[in-house]
Order: sequence, then structure tokens, then C-alpha cells
Amino acid sequence: MKTPKISEAVVRRLPVYLRFLNELSRRSVQMVSSQDLGQKLDLNPAQIRKDLAYFGEFGKKGIGYDVAYLIEKIRQILKLDQTIPVALVGAGNLGRALCNYNAYLKDNMKIVAVFDSSPDKIGIQMNNLTVLPMTALGESIKEHKVRIGIITVPAFEAQLVANQFVEAGVEAILNFAPVIIKVPTEIRVHHADFTTELMSLAYYLDH
Amino acid sequence: MKTPKISEAVVRRLPVYLRFLNELSRRSVQMVSSQDLGQKLDLNPAQIRKDLAYFGEFGKKGIGYDVAYLIEKIRQILKLDQTIPVALVGAGNLGRALCNYNAYLKDNMKIVAVFDSSPDKIGIQMNNLTVLPMTALGESIKEHKVRIGIITVPAFEAQLVANQFVEAGVEAILNFAPVIIKVPTEIRVHHADFTTELMSLAYYLDH
Repeated sequence: MKTPKISEAVVRRLPVYLRFLNELSRRSVQMVSSQDLGQKLDLNPAQIRKDLAYFGEFGKKGIGYDVAYLIEKIRQILKLDQTIPVALVGAGNLGRALCNYNAYLKDNMKIVAVFDSSPDKIGIQMNNLTVLPMTALGESIKEHKVRIGIITVPAFEAQLVANQFVEAGVEAILNFAPVIIKVPTEIRVHHADFTTELMSLAYYLDH
Repeated sequence: MKTPKISEAVVRRLPVYLRFLNELSRRSVQMVSSQDLGQKLDLNPAQIRKDLAYFGEFGKKGIGYDVAYLIEKIRQILKLDQTIPVALVGAGNLGRALCNYNAYLKDNMKIVAVFDSSPDKIGIQMNNLTVLPMTALGESIKEHKVRIGIITVPAFEAQLVANQFVEAGVEAILNFAPVIIKVPTEIRVHHADFTTELMSLAYYLDH
């Protein structure tokens, strides 16, 4: 399927739809309306219909969306039907927490390698992965065809790790360090900073 | 200052601006243009000017924005100039990682109490906080005037924790569990799910 270019806001909402649809599928729910989706996800049903209409007419008026079909379509659009090996640098508490999430990462997106620069961390097991030294990063990323790198090191080390990811051929980076990293424009970076989430919640207090 | 109602997208971008402005301030940079902000944050400068113009005319044509003034204004708008005590439930790897972030949480927003249901966790120290049993949650939240609750428990426990937060009087919840929780409409919930971040990155591969 050839998909049109879609806005970043829509790209960010699709995984949220997908998570809920997967939950419905586990509960054997077969159809869902935009009203149900909207209520559950705190979004306007019209917005949801508009988002999904980008990709063709999936829904049936008065009946709603076929859950299994919509899951398949969203996975296609997000390109989760391809294999996406992921590597992580920073075997601290957050790195360990993310590796434990691997169980939730169905599809073909998985953390396949973990690295750390600290001798204390190298060699330890994290959810079936052995923490490797940074010197192994380039080769391991090529071997596993890693496409996305996750950074969970302290702020002052994040740029160095980003440079190593880029040099090793990673196409996108998810950065958890509370610092902005510089990469070439062809590399996509998303910042996952829980402090910004907390701050945007503050706005809604007293509203 | 009376602020107009602003869109969720803007509310989510303001903390990102703030993070970068704080970085500039630490480096003693006094003025910044929307071009610089845009380049660094991967946003359109026109979008940035539009976002900031919501709150009045901060910028000077051809000169840019006064960093210190803009920081102060964004903090006001996000209401970070008030005290916002935060509580966290789930003293696992992720909970520990978030408590370690407390050092980055300047302003008046801090994790002031940590809880867990597991006897193994109760009593351990997490960044100067002692993990308390869930039975202490209601009283502790009232005592510390906690306004935001963070959930870092496994998916199957998240709803129960959310219920306890709501009952204790929390106004907003940041949920890291990979599950959608139900709360009364007056409670604001943000989901911080790293799997959705990873999925939206997948879309940009090959683009």
C-alpha cells in the first residue's frame, strides 16, 4: 500500500490506537466505534475518524471498525510488519526497565543488544541479553542489522553515544537522556523525557 | 497573568522549549532566535513563533527572544511557579530511574514519596526516599499535599494503583504501565509508554 505523508501528530497517535486495539483483540472484541475509541483514549471521535480516514475507508457507518483489520492496517502504516532490531546503550535502572519491556514488544521490534561503558556492568545479564562493552557496538550493530538505538546514559554521555550510533549506521534514535543531542538531519531523534511529561501535566492542574 | 486555553500540542511543546532554554541559560546565552530554536528542536521556526505568540509578544524582530524572560514566562504558563509534590508507586527499575531524575527536577516539582506493595521493597532507600507500604499511601499523599501520581507498576496492577491515587485526592497521573487506566474525567492522565515512542519512530525509517 502506498501511504500519503502523514503528520507527526497522527504518527504519534497511531501507536496509541494500536495499543488499545491490541487490548480489545486480547479480550476478543471484534468491532469498535470511534466513540468507544475516543472515550477510552480521551480523544474526539471526529479526530479519530479523520486520522484513520487518511489511509482509506476502514470504518462502517453505525457499526464501527473491524478490530483485527484495523490492527493490521495500522501495523502496515507504521511499518511494524518489518523486522526492526533495536540496540540500547546504558545498562542502568532505566535500561534494565526498558529491557524488561521487551516482553511487550511483540511484532518484530525487539532490543537485541545492550551496551555499557562501565566495567561493573559489562557481562551482566539483562532479560536474556549480556551487556557488551562499547568497543563491541559498531560490529554488533552491523551484525544484528540494528536500525534504532536507545540512549539511557546520563546526560553528559548522551552525545558521545549518539555519535557512535550514527557512525555504526543506526537510522533513528530514542533518547532518554535529559539533554538535546545533535545528529545529521537524515537521522530521526525522538526525545523521551519524563520531566517534560510531568511539566505538561502541571499545566492541567486546576483546569 | 490570565492565559488563554492552549492546545494540547502546544502544552506538550512548551516543556521542550523550556528544557532547551534552561540549557542556553546554563551556557550564559542571553538571546535566541526562533531559527535557532527551530533548528535545535527540529521544529519549524514559524510554528515556534506562533506557539509563543499565544502568550503575548515576547520576541523582538531580528533579535529574537530574551532567554531569561522566556523561561520565566513559560514556567508561569505551565504553572511551574507553584509547588507540585509528586508521589510514585512501583519501586522497580523504572521507579528507581525516575527517582534518580529528581535531581533534574528543579522548580517545585519533586517526587516526595515512593510506595510499593512488595515486602522486599518496603523500607529500601531510593534517592533519599524510603519506600513505604501501600497502606501508607492515603495518609502520606494528604500529608505531603501530593498533586501528581506516577505509576511504574506492572500492567496488571496499574488500575488498582490509579484507583488508590484518585481516592487519595491526586489531581493528575503519569502512567508508565503499558495499559490504559480508567479514572474520573476530572483527573488528567498522561501515558508515558516507551513502546509507543518506538513504534512512531518505526514510521520514519526509510523516509
